[in-house]
Amino acid sequence: MDTIRAYAPATVANVCCGFDILGFAMDSPGDEVVLRRTRNDEVFVSAIHGDGGLLPLDPTKNTASVAVRAFQEATGLRFGVSIELYKNLPLGSGMGSSAASAAAAVVAINALAGSPLSRHELVPFAMEAERVACGSAHADNVAPSILGGFVLIRDYQPLDVIKLPIDLELYCTLVHPHLEVKTSDSRKILRPVIALKDSITQSGNVAGLITGLFTKDLSLVSRSLKDVIAEPVRSVFIPGYDRIRQMAMECGALGAGISGSGPTMFALSANREVAQQTGARLQQHFSSLDIHSDILVSKINPEGAEVRS
Amino acid sequence: MDTIRAYAPATVANVCCGFDILGFAMDSPGDEVVLRRTRNDEVFVSAIHGDGGLLPLDPTKNTASVAVRAFQEATGLRFGVSIELYKNLPLGSGMGSSAASAAAAVVAINALAGSPLSRHELVPFAMEAERVACGSAHADNVAPSILGGFVLIRDYQPLDVIKLPIDLELYCTLVHPHLEVKTSDSRKILRPVIALKDSITQSGNVAGLITGLFTKDLSLVSRSLKDVIAEPVRSVFIPGYDRIRQMAMECGALGAGISGSGPTMFALSANREVAQQTGARLQQHFSSLDIHSDILVSKINPEGAEVRS
Repeated sequence: MDTIRAYAPATVANVCCGFDILGFAMDSPGDEVVLRRTRNDEVFVSAIHGDGGLLPLDPTKNTASVAVRAFQEATGLRFGVSIELYKNLPLGSGMGSSAASAAAAVVAINALAGSPLSRHELVPFAMEAERVACGSAHADNVAPSILGGFVLIRDYQPLDVIKLPIDLELYCTLVHPHLEVKTSDSRKILRPVIALKDSITQSGNVAGLITGLFTKDLSLVSRSLKDVIAEPVRSVFIPGYDRIRQMAMECGALGAGISGSGPTMFALSANREVAQQTGARLQQHFSSLDIHSDILVSKINPEGAEVRS
Repeated sequence: MDTIRAYAPATVANVCCGFDILGFAMDSPGDEVVLRRTRNDEVFVSAIHGDGGLLPLDPTKNTASVAVRAFQEATGLRFGVSIELYKNLPLGSGMGSSAASAAAAVVAINALAGSPLSRHELVPFAMEAERVACGSAHADNVAPSILGGFVLIRDYQPLDVIKLPIDLELYCTLVHPHLEVKTSDSRKILRPVIALKDSITQSGNVAGLITGLFTKDLSLVSRSLKDVIAEPVRSVFIPGYDRIRQMAMECGALGAGISGSGPTMFALSANREVAQQTGARLQQHFSSLDIHSDILVSKINPEGAEVRS
């Protein structure tokens, strides 16, 4: 095959108590790439649609091409590729936009090369793209975008990525308020030391969340969806943060928090109706503050990125 | 029934990465209590066997009687009880000795009262005994001793105790070196603040451990049995700590660490032979340092405390 179209979904990193170790994939929206084998041996970005001209065409800077180049370098399977990128995710929103492009690109280049690598083996190449996009080769967006479902990044040295085999249908609401929060600012505001007691609370909640997901105990999932480390500081970027969490719970959501480094907020719900009501309620909240917002409701995607043709 | 005999097992709190939130129960050894209904309305300790005269007979200070009194106060089911305590666990060793007496006592008094409460509901009364014994009403020994298996203490306010429904046969080696380490010293040595990155590592490991237990992924359990918070400081109390962990792994154990606040060390293994070899190897290590040690090997007990007659 000389042309591959691949899709990779938006993702929610952190998931409250899973700060820096947990992420999950949405069903939609997501980015698409079309990779075409070319006669020369270069990797280049031929076109980007939907980014408003903001993303670089430079193959050393675009996350899709960086991921493709990392794949080729590691496998030695070098051949010319043109990349056409269809951006459906808003940039810098905290829903894994750069990760989705990279995830789609590595899944596509692997398919174009005859699928020599497993999904897990593709993760490090997409992480290289994250390093270029935001300065840190983190995996909590790219891994769930590639693998689907809930993904644990247990460790980075060496990389230990575990897809949680969970059989639980959950729905996610994303509320993207049109506020500008730079990932680097959102990172800088975190304190390098924390109270031991907060670390214990966070551990208890992440253990509770994972137990609740495995045992389908939605009440336990709900009780565990709390972040005592990043959110108390990052929430200053989001007007009415505590009210937002409360509103989501009043709508019946299991929990809510900041998606990645924000400003997008996520809420998890047991069914689509609650997820939609939650979205409408939060959009109303932002409207009342004269902040425009977009609402996205989707099932948790259990399969991750897919080759579409 | 006017006489109840109950047994409650030794427990391992912390379990490396589960500092202050996780514990599990051994099959043996354990403490036994015999409760007898009396004609007056007092709770008193009639005899203690096996403690070398070290434990208090004063009912306001003995963990068994404190737990019984807490039960009676909360339920209003007041009647006279004499308590005979058979101590099989060494005191101050880090294997939940005070907790086992309290756990056996609450299970016995509940049976004597006609079982009005569930196992989960008994946990707070045994925690009161821990408050008397060591100044803090912690649950990570009493909860697994009462409930069995692996138990998560997700939170204390309000108390949220979850028995993990895990179907995995594991064996534990306890090595009790005859060193004196006071729980209060072991607690005091911990720093009240820690690095954010260590907190993230700990969260990743506890998430990995719980996932590994649910999915029966022994390699993941093994990779996750690390503690970057308490052990780096507490290990100063145990001569050759790093070598001990390494020796346990060389014997085939999944992991090893400090049991509770020590000085007992524990190792987890997938079968009894490895657990026994690990015990022999670690006893040899302590012998070479002229430190006498006791070795205890047992299956993880899935049921916890039991009424024996």
